[in-house]
Amino acid sequence: MRIVVIMPVVTRDLGPSVIRELSAVAKADDNVQVTFIDNGPPSIECEFDEALAVPDMINKAIEAEREGADAIIINCMQDPGLKACREAVSIPVVAPLETASHFAASLGRKFSVITTLSGSVPPIRDRCLMYGFRHSLASVRAVGIPVLELEKDMSTVISALVKQGQRAIEEDGADVIVFGCTCMVGAAQAVEEGLRKKGYAVPVVDPSVLAVRVAEVLADIGLSHSKRAYPYPPRKVITGYEGFRTS
Amino acid sequence: MRIVVIMPVVTRDLGPSVIRELSAVAKADDNVQVTFIDNGPPSIECEFDEALAVPDMINKAIEAEREGADAIIINCMQDPGLKACREAVSIPVVAPLETASHFAASLGRKFSVITTLSGSVPPIRDRCLMYGFRHSLASVRAVGIPVLELEKDMSTVISALVKQGQRAIEEDGADVIVFGCTCMVGAAQAVEEGLRKKGYAVPVVDPSVLAVRVAEVLADIGLSHSKRAYPYPPRKVITGYEGFRTS
Amino acid sequence: MRIVVIMPVVTRDLGPSVIRELSAVAKADDNVQVTFIDNGPPSIECEFDEALAVPDMINKAIEAEREGADAIIINCMQDPGLKACREAVSIPVVAPLETASHFAASLGRKFSVITTLSGSVPPIRDRCLMYGFRHSLASVRAVGIPVLELEKDMSTVISALVKQGQRAIEEDGADVIVFGCTCMVGAAQAVEEGLRKKGYAVPVVDPSVLAVRVAEVLADIGLSHSKRAYPYPPRKVITGYEGFRTS
Amino acid sequence: MRIVVIMPVVTRDLGPSVIRELSAVAKADDNVQVTFIDNGPPSIECEFDEALAVPDMINKAIEAEREGADAIIINCMQDPGLKACREAVSIPVVAPLETASHFAASLGRKFSVITTLSGSVPPIRDRCLMYGFRHSLASVRAVGIPVLELEKDMSTVISALVKQGQRAIEEDGADVIVFGCTCMVGAAQAVEEGLRKKGYAVPVVDPSVLAVRVAEVLADIGLSHSKRAYPYPPRKVITGYEGFRTS
Amino acid sequence: MRIVVIMPVVTRDLGPSVIRELSAVAKADDNVQVTFIDNGPPSIECEFDEALAVPDMINKAIEAEREGADAIIINCMQDPGLKACREAVSIPVVAPLETASHFAASLGRKFSVITTLSGSVPPIRDRCLMYGFRHSLASVRAVGIPVLELEKDMSTVISALVKQGQRAIEEDGADVIVFGCTCMVGAAQAVEEGLRKKGYAVPVVDPSVLAVRVAEVLADIGLSHSKRAYPYPPRKVITGYEGFRTS
Amino acid sequence: MRIVVIMPVVTRDLGPSVIRELSAVAKADDNVQVTFIDNGPPSIECEFDEALAVPDMINKAIEAEREGADAIIINCMQDPGLKACREAVSIPVVAPLETASHFAASLGRKFSVITTLSGSVPPIRDRCLMYGFRHSLASVRAVGIPVLELEKDMSTVISALVKQGQRAIEEDGADVIVFGCTCMVGAAQAVEEGLRKKGYAVPVVDPSVLAVRVAEVLADIGLSHSKRAYPYPPRKVITGYEGFRTS
Repeated sequence: MRIVVIMPVVTRDLGPSVIRELSAVAKADDNVQVTFIDNGPPSIECEFDEALAVPDMINKAIEAEREGADAIIINCMQDPGLKACREAVSIPVVAPLETASHFAASLGRKFSVITTLSGSVPPIRDRCLMYGFRHSLASVRAVGIPVLELEKDMSTVISALVKQGQRAIEEDGADVIVFGCTCMVGAAQAVEEGLRKKGYAVPVVDPSVLAVRVAEVLADIGLSHSKRAYPYPPRKVITGYEGFRTS
Repeated sequence: MRIVVIMPVVTRDLGPSVIRELSAVAKADDNVQVTFIDNGPPSIECEFDEALAVPDMINKAIEAEREGADAIIINCMQDPGLKACREAVSIPVVAPLETASHFAASLGRKFSVITTLSGSVPPIRDRCLMYGFRHSLASVRAVGIPVLELEKDMSTVISALVKQGQRAIEEDGADVIVFGCTCMVGAAQAVEEGLRKKGYAVPVVDPSVLAVRVAEVLADIGLSHSKRAYPYPPRKVITGYEGFRTS
Repeated sequence: MRIVVIMPVVTRDLGPSVIRELSAVAKADDNVQVTFIDNGPPSIECEFDEALAVPDMINKAIEAEREGADAIIINCMQDPGLKACREAVSIPVVAPLETASHFAASLGRKFSVITTLSGSVPPIRDRCLMYGFRHSLASVRAVGIPVLELEKDMSTVISALVKQGQRAIEEDGADVIVFGCTCMVGAAQAVEEGLRKKGYAVPVVDPSVLAVRVAEVLADIGLSHSKRAYPYPPRKVITGYEGFRTS
Repeated sequence: MRIVVIMPVVTRDLGPSVIRELSAVAKADDNVQVTFIDNGPPSIECEFDEALAVPDMINKAIEAEREGADAIIINCMQDPGLKACREAVSIPVVAPLETASHFAASLGRKFSVITTLSGSVPPIRDRCLMYGFRHSLASVRAVGIPVLELEKDMSTVISALVKQGQRAIEEDGADVIVFGCTCMVGAAQAVEEGLRKKGYAVPVVDPSVLAVRVAEVLADIGLSHSKRAYPYPPRKVITGYEGFRTS
Repeated sequence: MRIVVIMPVVTRDLGPSVIRELSAVAKADDNVQVTFIDNGPPSIECEFDEALAVPDMINKAIEAEREGADAIIINCMQDPGLKACREAVSIPVVAPLETASHFAASLGRKFSVITTLSGSVPPIRDRCLMYGFRHSLASVRAVGIPVLELEKDMSTVISALVKQGQRAIEEDGADVIVFGCTCMVGAAQAVEEGLRKKGYAVPVVDPSVLAVRVAEVLADIGLSHSKRAYPYPPRKVITGYEGFRTS
Repeated sequence: MRIVVIMPVVTRDLGPSVIRELSAVAKADDNVQVTFIDNGPPSIECEFDEALAVPDMINKAIEAEREGADAIIINCMQDPGLKACREAVSIPVVAPLETASHFAASLGRKFSVITTLSGSVPPIRDRCLMYGFRHSLASVRAVGIPVLELEKDMSTVISALVKQGQRAIEEDGADVIVFGCTCMVGAAQAVEEGLRKKGYAVPVVDPSVLAVRVAEVLADIGLSHSKRAYPYPPRKVITGYEGFRTS
């Protein structure tokens, strides 16, 4: 199976580690490919960034389907371009926040998302509410560490995640924790262990890992998003984006 | 991996076909086992039936965990005993209605569940609302064919599912269809095809298939329900159920 | 009028005081009978306990109706078996949490329920939400005293109820207080007085007392639950529960 | 016990029959008194009518409490002046729509209110939503017969109520029916019987009857609305209403 | 254009300053008139006060329309008599809380209303919820200064508004502030500036100013409330209010 | 005052009529300018179209603010790029669907939006729900006439709007009608008149007209969106969009 992971950023630094982590969770015979956009921001931190990343993401999604991909993963917790990409293609488009929220909601009563910086809190909360989790979302919290510093000192990140996780449980009533940045990939077990030492037995959801596994399941059993809900765009010339060609 | 499918009924007639269908969707190296309750109703058609099935289901769940199962599936669209079983064990307990609803909600805007008889409509609707799908649930409909007759004439069942699916789309605004009985297992492709011929491109979700795949994913990545949300019951003697022993 | 109070526990210690308190509030010519289950837990503290109490509760409910009872009261704030019992019989089945929540919601803007131990908080909150009180429920709080110790030192219990009631008012915005355990029966006036001394004029609802009075009203004016909402279970042999016989 | 029923209208024609019906449902030793306003509309059919009835209703409520009443009933399904009267007095003020809605919501899944003329539909629906019954209210329907003609030909009224009740069940999903005008008092049994003949076993709630019984219960067990939610108005001179004297 | 501002109080002290402030914001060629009720309370602080102000407000509204007014403003943040006045006339009736809430909800994610005394908090919150702002309303707070003292020392009022605004932002998650008393008219710029100095860039909405401008817009483009939603009251004699005459 | 109307399409055909209509409603001394995007679709009919229009819309918004505009109007009923544009600038950004929905919700109980083709129904409904109008939105309907044909035969368009408006009132319970395409500008009075002839007195809201007037009001009284809710994007190089320069 061929799964294409679209990175909605132009910085390629994160490539190797993302491929390594996601390939590790994929099934043995899967081919997980990572593709970066050519035009757009170096990171997604607000609605403005997202708006400028989406056009090239759509392009990459169309390309992936044309080249035979079985499923697409949008590798960012703002789920950028989810609806537009689903309109453009018919293979499954899996978004980590949406997927992780559904799993988290089914594993407990209330979940909290813990992200990097406070600037990402409102966009994540907005999307959780849009997906219908008004009554399952306990809170969105931030560890105060920027994305690009996450990899540098993983033990500090894990401590910070445990600390905010504990506050989410005690102050916000969460009983499930969700990572709020795809770059936290791989740390779930350590955070779960850290919270257990504090006396809290709560599952910690790693959205990147889940996205790969859900993409596999959907492609495997032949299930994709509804084309009645996300119909193909009417064919017409889009000035400045003439290369884009949907079915 | 060892997955135990608990059938909340005493009738064993459905055993062979359920094992056949679910094993077919499981991964090659999985061991899917089906276990029936010894005490309880021959079928689940209301709250009364469910109440009398749950005690022995809990027993089977505890037994499955003790004997090394990696995950448990409750094979009934009323999701009987879900909370009590999750309290009793710590391995993942997957319920088909809960799981299918979360997938359906993420694949479109509104989904409809199509079950067997009208008597099952209120219990399914009640559980969808309890799970938080008030705004995603388009409707719950029935084909008017009893469970035990489903296998006899599958082509009639498929026609009936297509017919109700079409009404769900046209009258209720659904853009995703979910089977409302685990005995409809295996018919998704035919119903999806039937609806496509009517002009509707909507995914058809087979909850039994999804439950097996989600159980695999959860067990595989070490994710289970929150024990903070579903703590172990306090130890005490339960008169008439002395054999039950939770960790 | 004959009202049967079903105690969903096997411990008979609480019998005399419950009969004494409930008979005191009933009308002079009423006959309030208390019946305990024979199989099940000694106390209801979670979903697991409830699941194992319900089968025999259904049995007692059917028996009560057959022997001419005019109404049934389920004497536990988890309202165990409410839906299944209503399916099994046609006389009114009154549940204290449901009844008290409706009265509390009509006497103010927001109510808090104060129960015994923190383990009972989630089941009570879940049921309040299921009944539709998402926007009227201020909080569910616990005094930290186990059920069986409630009777030993009532003045300590009352102080604890006043203290948590005060916090519910000040921190959670409650303007009505509801007892969260049927064993707190009889303490409403003292708690109301205690809160008044703190400067808060809020009604304190005693669910057991209210349940008796509401059962009388329903039986008296010939009103019961909708059999369209709670139809009789289809007739069939339930293995292990052959004695159960519904209409 | 002394219960004062405030009629928010100046027409006294309805007096005798209301007293007769309500006294019939009250307990033997109760004293049910009916008082009409002196200034205001002859009937309540909209917000305008209600606004002009409320000042004198407040007056009558204060008077009733001063003269020793144990509880007050507002005899109109728009529940006019409920909040203002509760501020003005501390004895229970019972409103028929609020009370009937809470009982109806607890007896089934969804209820419909059936009133006289279509003009009363929006005010009743608005109040049901304000009370929090957004998800329990199936519909508000009208029989198309004005209040003052209700008494003339009760069999026609009953037929119309059965007909609209049937539509509420079949088209709107109701499983409980509530009368939408206090002048339909006494017809519940006949309408319930009529619906049963159509094949529908649903309870029919008579709000006037319920209001009397709930007023008795509240006064009897010493429970009233929260003065924290409905504090006494600050003392000051109200020009044109100098006679009003609270607390 | 002629806009009539109805003051729902009998005290005329506030007249000159209200006229001055509102005329200042109105367009050059507008004629803003202020009319006080003759019967009713000196100030609106609860439901009781409002109930006694509304009859004469309706009278003034009918009078204003009859004398050629183009729009009516109800100058009080409890929006007293809004529905009844809309039934009585067909020219636009603008209410400051309703109007300000809609603007505030569209300028950010969550807004807080800051009023005078804590007694006004519940009525304002009730109305915001009734208008549908359950999920946009962050909080209602009070500065603890009575209406009539607002004008005496405006700098103290502004400091108090800044302080509560800061707490609304930090503790309640507000990103828009709304004045909760029409007598705070004119202070928006100073409060916005004060909050900016604290590091918060949030708009401060002055409901009185907005009400004048919205009344102008509605009258100008010929838009008024729906007479289907607010039909004229049926013609009949209202005892004690014979002078009232609706179209 | 200078108001810039951003047309999120590359087709310039609509320019003259839009300028003519919008200038007609603006105040005499206003300068209403219309600007088209250079890159993007010829029309907005789905999420895909919108995603490709937004980058250049942001560019035009930044340009407008830099050149001294007092307010910006996004002239499309999908409200494309609203959040991103508000992040990019600090002058008011007014979106017609958001604005019209708030006015419609305050003029009646339930409103319906009537758009051009059925493909636009889901995006408009999604946005209404995101804005919080779940309980005020009666329905979104389509007349079945494409945007570019609207101008050709206005009397047919008006008849179609009246017909769908009537169905919205009768079948969906609407009491306010909102145009669902900015190209319907100018037809409100005719549609209102048409509905009145059918017996329905409901306001018809023209979102384009309202957007101009609300932009004027906001700019005039110095009110804009919250920069706390919509902070400036962090400064960084956006590959392919280097010209964009915020704050």
